[in-house]
Amino acid sequence: MRFPFALISSSVSFGLNSSSRLTSRHLYPLSSKSQRSTLTTFFNWQPPMATAEESLRRALADKQSAVEAQGNAVRALKAAKASKPEIDAAIEALNGLKLEKSSIEKQLQAAVSGNDGDAALSREAFRQAAVNTLERRLFYIPSFKIYRGVAGLYDYGPPGCAVKSNVLAFWRQHFVLEENMLEVDCPCVTPEVVLRASGHVDKFTDLMVKDEKTGTCYRADHLLKDFCNEKLQKDLSVSAEKAAELKHVLATLDDLSAEELGAKIKEYGITAPDTKNPLSDPYPFNLMFQTSIGPSGLSPGYMRPETAQGIFVNFKDLYYYNGNKLPFAAAQIGQAFRNEISPRQGLLRVREFTLAEIEHFVDPEDKSHPKYSEVVNLEFLMFPREEQMSGQSAKRTRLGDAVSKGTVNNETLGYFIGRVYLFLTCLGIDKDRLRFRQHLANEMAHYAADCWDAEIECSYGWIECVGIADRSAYDLRAHTEKSGVPLVAAEKFLEPREVEKLAIAPVKKELGLAFKGNQKKVVEALEAMSEKEALEMKAALESKGEVEFYVCTLGKNVPIKKNMVSISKEIKKEHQRVFTPSVIEPSFGIGRIIYCLFEHSFYTRPSKAGDEQLNVFRFPPLVAPIKCTVFPLVQNQQYEHVAKVISKSLTAAGISHKIDITGTSIGKRYARTDELGVPFAITVDSTKDVTIRERDSKLQVRVDVEEAASVVKSVTDGHRTWEDVWANYPHHTSGSADD
Amino acid sequence: MRFPFALISSSVSFGLNSSSRLTSRHLYPLSSKSQRSTLTTFFNWQPPMATAEESLRRALADKQSAVEAQGNAVRALKAAKASKPEIDAAIEALNGLKLEKSSIEKQLQAAVSGNDGDAALSREAFRQAAVNTLERRLFYIPSFKIYRGVAGLYDYGPPGCAVKSNVLAFWRQHFVLEENMLEVDCPCVTPEVVLRASGHVDKFTDLMVKDEKTGTCYRADHLLKDFCNEKLQKDLSVSAEKAAELKHVLATLDDLSAEELGAKIKEYGITAPDTKNPLSDPYPFNLMFQTSIGPSGLSPGYMRPETAQGIFVNFKDLYYYNGNKLPFAAAQIGQAFRNEISPRQGLLRVREFTLAEIEHFVDPEDKSHPKYSEVVNLEFLMFPREEQMSGQSAKRTRLGDAVSKGTVNNETLGYFIGRVYLFLTCLGIDKDRLRFRQHLANEMAHYAADCWDAEIECSYGWIECVGIADRSAYDLRAHTEKSGVPLVAAEKFLEPREVEKLAIAPVKKELGLAFKGNQKKVVEALEAMSEKEALEMKAALESKGEVEFYVCTLGKNVPIKKNMVSISKEIKKEHQRVFTPSVIEPSFGIGRIIYCLFEHSFYTRPSKAGDEQLNVFRFPPLVAPIKCTVFPLVQNQQYEHVAKVISKSLTAAGISHKIDITGTSIGKRYARTDELGVPFAITVDSTKDVTIRERDSKLQVRVDVEEAASVVKSVTDGHRTWEDVWANYPHHTSGSADD
Repeated sequence: MRFPFALISSSVSFGLNSSSRLTSRHLYPLSSKSQRSTLTTFFNWQPPMATAEESLRRALADKQSAVEAQGNAVRALKAAKASKPEIDAAIEALNGLKLEKSSIEKQLQAAVSGNDGDAALSREAFRQAAVNTLERRLFYIPSFKIYRGVAGLYDYGPPGCAVKSNVLAFWRQHFVLEENMLEVDCPCVTPEVVLRASGHVDKFTDLMVKDEKTGTCYRADHLLKDFCNEKLQKDLSVSAEKAAELKHVLATLDDLSAEELGAKIKEYGITAPDTKNPLSDPYPFNLMFQTSIGPSGLSPGYMRPETAQGIFVNFKDLYYYNGNKLPFAAAQIGQAFRNEISPRQGLLRVREFTLAEIEHFVDPEDKSHPKYSEVVNLEFLMFPREEQMSGQSAKRTRLGDAVSKGTVNNETLGYFIGRVYLFLTCLGIDKDRLRFRQHLANEMAHYAADCWDAEIECSYGWIECVGIADRSAYDLRAHTEKSGVPLVAAEKFLEPREVEKLAIAPVKKELGLAFKGNQKKVVEALEAMSEKEALEMKAALESKGEVEFYVCTLGKNVPIKKNMVSISKEIKKEHQRVFTPSVIEPSFGIGRIIYCLFEHSFYTRPSKAGDEQLNVFRFPPLVAPIKCTVFPLVQNQQYEHVAKVISKSLTAAGISHKIDITGTSIGKRYARTDELGVPFAITVDSTKDVTIRERDSKLQVRVDVEEAASVVKSVTDGHRTWEDVWANYPHHTSGSADD
Repeated sequence: MRFPFALISSSVSFGLNSSSRLTSRHLYPLSSKSQRSTLTTFFNWQPPMATAEESLRRALADKQSAVEAQGNAVRALKAAKASKPEIDAAIEALNGLKLEKSSIEKQLQAAVSGNDGDAALSREAFRQAAVNTLERRLFYIPSFKIYRGVAGLYDYGPPGCAVKSNVLAFWRQHFVLEENMLEVDCPCVTPEVVLRASGHVDKFTDLMVKDEKTGTCYRADHLLKDFCNEKLQKDLSVSAEKAAELKHVLATLDDLSAEELGAKIKEYGITAPDTKNPLSDPYPFNLMFQTSIGPSGLSPGYMRPETAQGIFVNFKDLYYYNGNKLPFAAAQIGQAFRNEISPRQGLLRVREFTLAEIEHFVDPEDKSHPKYSEVVNLEFLMFPREEQMSGQSAKRTRLGDAVSKGTVNNETLGYFIGRVYLFLTCLGIDKDRLRFRQHLANEMAHYAADCWDAEIECSYGWIECVGIADRSAYDLRAHTEKSGVPLVAAEKFLEPREVEKLAIAPVKKELGLAFKGNQKKVVEALEAMSEKEALEMKAALESKGEVEFYVCTLGKNVPIKKNMVSISKEIKKEHQRVFTPSVIEPSFGIGRIIYCLFEHSFYTRPSKAGDEQLNVFRFPPLVAPIKCTVFPLVQNQQYEHVAKVISKSLTAAGISHKIDITGTSIGKRYARTDELGVPFAITVDSTKDVTIRERDSKLQVRVDVEEAASVVKSVTDGHRTWEDVWANYPHHTSGSADD
């Protein structure tokens, strides 16, 4: 089973539908006026309906009318006591119409769920096989199982834990070390003041409804989504227009306000799934786990919903640590927490997860990147905003073209998109099931300059696994404002620069003569003029000699004459430019990446006897939980001694491995380690040379005992390919160490 | 400044006084009867008072009496109008006594705080210098500083984060990989049921008092401790008896119940330190951060106070994963949380910290360890219970002797003590300031078989950094009981074993005749007899032929005759032995280890000009945040090119490093990296060969450009010593790259 199903490439992806929650901040319920207006554009947009389905729904409706009309005709003939042949002919025509209707129904059924239904079935079967293996071999399991578990909490068992630690080590290598990032490690417990500044206390919510009798809670958008999907797939009598409406609701689900969601739930008569009881109106539920810091009960705190804030609040120290130079990036790996209302989909939506986040601070006036040229020629699937809006699908694109055309906002953003692509594909993510999808206008926070998600396709659809956002200066400004500590950078000029500045100089003597006791208020009002107001006054004074000027502290207009104020442009020298840096934030959902990696790596193949399907994970050595197993072919002191010698060399070489000296058949032992994704096995069947077998090809070579560890090391370290080993060592062909 | 102060080796260590909170479970307030009784022994024990201090206090009290007596004598002589020479002589004697008293006072002052006072001062200065450097270079800083921080929460900045990640990587290498442990990764959010079973919900508390007017909270034991210390050090009029009492209170602080603590606070008249207001009675405050899981508000949860429970609840799966074989160990690295009442002492007592815990499961009947021989000859400071009780200090001991004498309970516990010693000393912990202290009877939970703490001496005293406990079957039994899922292991016998079992066979016919409708209840009561009861009945029936038997379901005695029941011993065959494994738990407080490592690595030395003190961290390459810096001697394109070439080789070799191309003097650049603990610097002062400088010796060798990276790699990887490099390369002597 090699992921045999075709997934529909739709313009409405899972990542979009279920909202880009990974980085969460673009998930805030939209509330500001300006955002609502961009939303309207999207609301007017009608998602293109699959033509076949639409015409079938219309044909079905027509045929239904025809059947009804013909039924009426038959009844009319009977009432009019028409002749038997006449009535029989009419009945025959009616039956013909019914047959045609039934045929259209079958086609429609196939169109809405049929093909997709088969695919869904095989997706389901594939996932079941993978998840069974993953749970049985303790890659991950529901937490606290002996107490019947808690939804949305999972443990990584030994192989899963090793995979996770390999993924994180590679992340650190690929991003932190390679780019000289400043890694920090901040606590999960966070005082309220920080998360109030970031907006999480007010806005990090999902809309919830309650069963009015039992109090059970549901996510409002999930209920509406399930209703629409069910209706579209199972109710063939839905008209083409109604179907379009339901699809539109699905496409715009994330944009609905509490009122709109509530209205839809009422309109469609949606009730509590378990009890059919009526539901409450939707209301916001904050997704942060709340707690209290210290014994007094007076200091509320939260478990952080992301790691980024820990970096923002340290900006000043980190900037200093970097020699007060931009650009620089800080990074953090750590746990984050979201008290999901009703977690679904295994590792993909959980209440506690590992995030790895980068905050790359740049001068907003210069978003170039010195290493951009290293990624400019990469080509992969990109899915810009416009192509989503016009119903196209993701296309293979050269990164450099997307940046130079302006599709990707700037070089630094482009650089990180390229680095993320390299990171994910090195881990073993299938490049054909990885796409970079740009956020639609309505998905993006108003302050964001541009935003792309790395989405990976798995049996649940396209999953947002990495968010890469240019968040402009939003976060630093928010903390500057709340804390009173300026989080800014300065560009020191090599030479002082001359800057034109407007100077407003009220002539106090004249003003005193004219306004007496009100002089001070008039002076203040003149000095408080904006540049525009001052320039207008200057022009008016020069042309007319006098203007009316409104002094708000006096609540009235006063006449200002030319001799009362001097307005001029002055040249000043400035030594530096002070500004709030922009931040570009790649944010990685490690658990989601790992789950997708599990699916992309999983396949089954028949056993040699052909009597069963064997499970394999094709992990690259980089992420494999164990790099190598060592088997004595038979239980035998000499072979076991050799196995121990090889094991010692592997330990010295830093290669994680396992000895299996059980008496089980060699085939079973291979199957057992294939199921853990162990790339190489060394079988000891002599005291001089041994067999090294590669997991996926099942090819085997003969290598001297002394050389075995170093051959495995060179291949797992990536200094040598298996093909190269295969070309340079004698092949093992005897059946003795066969599987 | 090379940690120049002598620390007093006392039988009452910091670790003991401030309670061994790291593993917390031995911290539960003692409540069971059996534990109280072991406690009594300790309460009767009088801590040996330092002889000098005690005799000085007595001498002072005597002298005070003498002064008073002589004062009275003088007054009496005056009243009796004695002769002037007589009065003068008496006054002279009085002045002599006063002088002597003042001299004793000085000596006593010196004894209680003097020597220690100087040491305390230099400890304080040393700590200040180290902490200043650590915070300035962002090894760690208080979290959320721009919002004025939160007590007990710290961020690791870039170098601290690198040190932490190196320590954890080595921990994983030294324990998990080396011992083939099963590493798991469980969530921090934990449902109440789990922590109720473990005892944390009921017992994980500290005693707290509140300022009755302001509501400010204090740890009750801290207030009492501060009072006693203050009194002992500053009040010279305290009698020897009173001083002994105060010292006894200090020694037994952790054992005081809420009532006893409250009584002492009242007795001593202790008030709120900030306001002098009266204090409430002490009451328990649970140290877990509480939260709520899911939206209903009905599922309480806590942030885990340790990682161990995640392993215990998974025992069944892990045992299966290990092929149903014992012994095996599981391990976990992760965050733990304790809502301290009033955190003190920087990184040592924090509200969120990283724990690394091992649970090694063994058959309670066989606690041998296959690799015990590898540690048996290690020698280090051990501090067994008896030597603490008799006021001795820790002694250098061969581990094998401590195990064979039974001081250390078993081989596996001994093995882990040895491995912990190797782990800490490899990191750079000074072996002379590391001791293994056994828990006193009153410190240990009643179920624990034995318990040793690795304590590291730093400027705060001896700090418990690793706890190594044999916790017997307690944890698995607790979860078995609460969850109903048996967490047991089975030993399969090679051959079935014959076991004698008692068989009770009521003769229903006879019982029916005798008891009619009550027959069933009598049968059940007979079958429910314990082995002891049944054997007594058998004996009685054989001797007397009839016994009275109480049937509780009937509420009365009935006569049982010999023919009504047959009681016999039967031989049964058993194929396995089912038991609850014991667990040996080494638990590492990573933040505490790192802080002690910082102190043990820190020293200062004069600059070349002698005008300032330079800071150095002597981290071994294993933990150094960066292994190497690369400096072009002067700003020059050629040199910068060479520096980049070397940097590329270092990256390829996986050596973390930094290029510093600022124009600062080479001496300043050396000082800057010494302060980060970077062990090696490559200075580019030619395009052919370069200078490699070692941090602590400041020795420099000349190495070809091509060879530079590999020389640094071999030394940082530990494949070669610096001495060996020094012996094999030309020495650099010119002043050009000097500091």
